[in-house]
Amino acid sequence: MTPTNDVPTSTNAVPTAGTPAGVLRGTVETYWASAVARDWDAFADTLAEDVVYELPQTRERIRGRERYVRFNRDYPADWHARVERIVAEPGQVVSWIQVTVGPEEMDAVSFFTGDAHGRITSVIDFWPEPYEPPAGREHLVERY
Amino acid sequence: MTPTNDVPTSTNAVPTAGTPAGVLRGTVETYWASAVARDWDAFADTLAEDVVYELPQTRERIRGRERYVRFNRDYPADWHARVERIVAEPGQVVSWIQVTVGPEEMDAVSFFTGDAHGRITSVIDFWPEPYEPPAGREHLVERY
Repeated sequence: MTPTNDVPTSTNAVPTAGTPAGVLRGTVETYWASAVARDWDAFADTLAEDVVYELPQTRERIRGRERYVRFNRDYPADWHARVERIVAEPGQVVSWIQVTVGPEEMDAVSFFTGDAHGRITSVIDFWPEPYEPPAGREHLVERY
Repeated sequence: MTPTNDVPTSTNAVPTAGTPAGVLRGTVETYWASAVARDWDAFADTLAEDVVYELPQTRERIRGRERYVRFNRDYPADWHARVERIVAEPGQVVSWIQVTVGPEEMDAVSFFTGDAHGRITSVIDFWPEPYEPPAGREHLVERY
């Protein structure tokens, strides 16, 4: 620890570019912005060569930048996305985005890890779907 | 910024107790450990009085510590959980846990915010379920 480090210490601080947590946070922001813009060169630049993508819900895995860019480029739907939340620490970031496809809205939660250059080395994606709440807890909950 | 702050700067550092990010991380670790142990006093201690719990998939919301503890205490299933990943920054934490109920395994992802005392002020829970992958991307993916 040197006295010149500039990691924020406020309890409300958000990691910013230039901090260890901020590097990967910035990469993830670029990842989403370039995916939404269909800028596949910029998107590829956020990824390590040997990036691994996993979908635990389908138990699908994609290995390597080239295949993973192709998977996203070829994705059939005309989707858009808005970042709801990003949580970052050095080497790990989570994003929660809201994706819209026509009139449909979906949530997606993605766990990222990164390398020393701030490139993404792994992405684990969750796509939780709406469901009906079980009976018996109406006295505790409200619906929104 | 003082030269004596002890926020880690290593790119692989994990926030630890005593750092701004580490306080809420520790609270979330206690939240899960006490829930698994059914220690509802310790569980209640992790929560702010006016904590708000939301389930976007069912659009259910629970307001207040007392109701939220009751919701968890009364939950019918004999579940256990293992923390897969925690990502923490000052004021925000995300956990990914694997929950087992008998032979069934489920993932749960929870977004937490906290107050200045390190108590949890909001929890947003996602429970993503398995689904069959769409056809047409078999040339890019492997199954695991």
